[in-house]
Amino acid sequence: MARPAPLSGFPEWLPAQRAVEQQVIETLRRTFELHGFAGIETRSVEPMERLLSKGEIDKEVYVLRRLHADDSEPDDAAKQLGLHFDLTVPFARYVLENAGKLDFPFRRYQIQRVWRGERPQEGRYREFRQADIDVVGADTLPFHYDVEMVEVMAEAFAQLSLPALRMQVNNRKLVQGFYRGLGVEDVAPVLRAVDKLDKIGPAQVHALLTDEVGLTAQQADLCLRLATITGGDAAVVDEVRALGVTGDELEQGLHEVALLLDGVRDVPRDGFDVVADLSIARGLDYYTGTVYETKMAGFEHLGSVCSGGRYDSLASDGRTTYPGVGISFGVTRTLAPLFSRGLTATRSTPTCVLVVLVDEGSRATSRECAAALRERGIPAEVAPAAQKYGKQIRYAERRGIPFVWFPAEASADGVAAVRDIRSGEQVPADVASWTPPDDDLRPQVVQPAG
Amino acid sequence: MARPAPLSGFPEWLPAQRAVEQQVIETLRRTFELHGFAGIETRSVEPMERLLSKGEIDKEVYVLRRLHADDSEPDDAAKQLGLHFDLTVPFARYVLENAGKLDFPFRRYQIQRVWRGERPQEGRYREFRQADIDVVGADTLPFHYDVEMVEVMAEAFAQLSLPALRMQVNNRKLVQGFYRGLGVEDVAPVLRAVDKLDKIGPAQVHALLTDEVGLTAQQADLCLRLATITGGDAAVVDEVRALGVTGDELEQGLHEVALLLDGVRDVPRDGFDVVADLSIARGLDYYTGTVYETKMAGFEHLGSVCSGGRYDSLASDGRTTYPGVGISFGVTRTLAPLFSRGLTATRSTPTCVLVVLVDEGSRATSRECAAALRERGIPAEVAPAAQKYGKQIRYAERRGIPFVWFPAEASADGVAAVRDIRSGEQVPADVASWTPPDDDLRPQVVQPAG
Repeated sequence: MARPAPLSGFPEWLPAQRAVEQQVIETLRRTFELHGFAGIETRSVEPMERLLSKGEIDKEVYVLRRLHADDSEPDDAAKQLGLHFDLTVPFARYVLENAGKLDFPFRRYQIQRVWRGERPQEGRYREFRQADIDVVGADTLPFHYDVEMVEVMAEAFAQLSLPALRMQVNNRKLVQGFYRGLGVEDVAPVLRAVDKLDKIGPAQVHALLTDEVGLTAQQADLCLRLATITGGDAAVVDEVRALGVTGDELEQGLHEVALLLDGVRDVPRDGFDVVADLSIARGLDYYTGTVYETKMAGFEHLGSVCSGGRYDSLASDGRTTYPGVGISFGVTRTLAPLFSRGLTATRSTPTCVLVVLVDEGSRATSRECAAALRERGIPAEVAPAAQKYGKQIRYAERRGIPFVWFPAEASADGVAAVRDIRSGEQVPADVASWTPPDDDLRPQVVQPAG
Repeated sequence: MARPAPLSGFPEWLPAQRAVEQQVIETLRRTFELHGFAGIETRSVEPMERLLSKGEIDKEVYVLRRLHADDSEPDDAAKQLGLHFDLTVPFARYVLENAGKLDFPFRRYQIQRVWRGERPQEGRYREFRQADIDVVGADTLPFHYDVEMVEVMAEAFAQLSLPALRMQVNNRKLVQGFYRGLGVEDVAPVLRAVDKLDKIGPAQVHALLTDEVGLTAQQADLCLRLATITGGDAAVVDEVRALGVTGDELEQGLHEVALLLDGVRDVPRDGFDVVADLSIARGLDYYTGTVYETKMAGFEHLGSVCSGGRYDSLASDGRTTYPGVGISFGVTRTLAPLFSRGLTATRSTPTCVLVVLVDEGSRATSRECAAALRERGIPAEVAPAAQKYGKQIRYAERRGIPFVWFPAEASADGVAAVRDIRSGEQVPADVASWTPPDDDLRPQVVQPAG
């Protein structure tokens, strides 16, 4: 077999990188569970008709075909199976399918891979992992859950060593209400044009709004002025009001943005802040109120690493409508660029202690030492072979294993000892009581240099 | 949207079932890491040529196609991507791809989904999860790792509440050496015929061996007698020797089986035992020494739930060969039938304490109570709305949340209190010090009735 090459867009991690990812996932999971979110997973596939039902026909979905497909395979393309491209569409389906067995409001988290057949580049992958939380109600869902999404994610972020994060929030009712207050009837093309502000700049958006969408120059001016409003407190509400547009929907949106900013006042601010940014729109069209986006300092080119919003009618079975609010953290999108810049772990193995082997005949003794350490939660393994101690120590060194254990049989004075191979310090020790420093128990995250 | 129906072969779990699965995965992960196995994950896809390279052209692989495939898509079917059907083929590829960055012997675990387009039935799914451990060496790998595989899995099983498990071990060298000692040159057809013993019985296997494989009646007799030998200690070696066949390869196999049985003598035996069963062959043809299979008491019809073996040349880059030994636990195959018989958890949410809400104005107070509990590792959430206390308590009851917290504002005497809603007992309590019984902190596994 020739040495295989990586597949573009399908990232894989070395063991030390995976140790970092695993710790990130565990932190997310622990935080979500402390807040009472139940973990679920959905199957990786959905019928194509469901994947494409949101009207985004340009989605790059992966379609599945069995290699030995037979007559039982559906001819109808819509009945074929495709890999899910996010965790929201399958979750909406899961809620409908199991509505009779779930209790609402239903709080769930979901950490899974998703697939998109897009052209790979930094921050965009064909297979990647997301971590979502959502709360879904039956027919109604109070606004305080919009606040809770931010609170929970902020608490998780505070435990991860990531670059500073800035969450930008907006509200569809505010924006659409503003456009309608201006006399615009079809708001979707305006949203789409303003969404391009980052890419093409205000002059071109203005041209789009007047020449293609058909707004007056004054209407376009006001749309652009709205999109430039940003701030961390209720002053943004006053700035919007100062533009002189009115209407019930706009008022409701302003009220919700003010509630949200007020609700997250106490959110931990160390490397994380929340600002209203009235240019934020989110591409997907199912959002109906709050929308969230999050940029990582120094990595703004990746786009948003944590996004979501309120959707009042993502799922409905005719009798009941299930409104929800959710937010999705891009685990791979966040970690992959950090890995490529050197983020890693102190070692490539969970092993904290390597127990040396005196000779093959005493393997049982060394195994017992390792078992006694494991019994107390200390990851330990026995050296692969009874080589010279120098070779056994190098086995540990290469992997970053911090400690080497010498059973009583291995030392001249017949007393077991443990050596910190970084300092070379060796001290007598008892497997029943010796404990490594907390920082050495598990691989620790190592930030990129510089 | 009409209520969606489940997809046959793609099982999904309700939140309480997923809580059980999550605990099983955490136990496996903790055990593997204590033994120094590094966790890795591989991408879900491999080029078809790699998936099909093991000669099993009848594999039911899922092939991927981008919905909007363009000219950059390979025409050559072998270059197309398919979903992996096990974790061994991708692991072998990962080892070759990253050999320069890994240290050998390399110990890894991998817990991931795999896909097979087979006809679904109990114990056989189109999407399911496996948990694998493997140790891979560069050019050589000592036999003691064959013992360690059993030791590690047994330790994990001892912490799971599963029906009794019996691991059956055999050795390819023993069986092939025996056949060759009998004068059989092409051993593969004999292996395939004997592998059918369970399904078609000894008379038919005998007929196959004589009529189709071309053995003499006496050779066929001896092959069948070998396959009936079973036992938990070195007596099996004497039984084989009593058949009067000799040869170096056979001797090596006998030696290894004896070593394995001796090595696992001390493995915890509570609900888990290991026996040599010389009929065990394993379908895949890359095994070269030890093979493992595991049956679950009362669920023998599922086939093996934990299988693997030694492969001396699964991966090779021309210069270096990477021999390995590994074992794979079928997480879904084991849990799915138990779920359908009632295995579940005590509650459908991680929440241990529901903090009641006096009125919307005091939500901040209730949130602080919940935050103080979470600070000490107690999962807590605030009631969704300031309904009558009876309604708030029923919210907890429906989800199996064991405790309801009344902030000071909610009680007549102004002292905070906690109620165990199962007993109705209510006591004064302080968020800074109250602790639930250990068993209530997380959802507990509930075994099927009967």
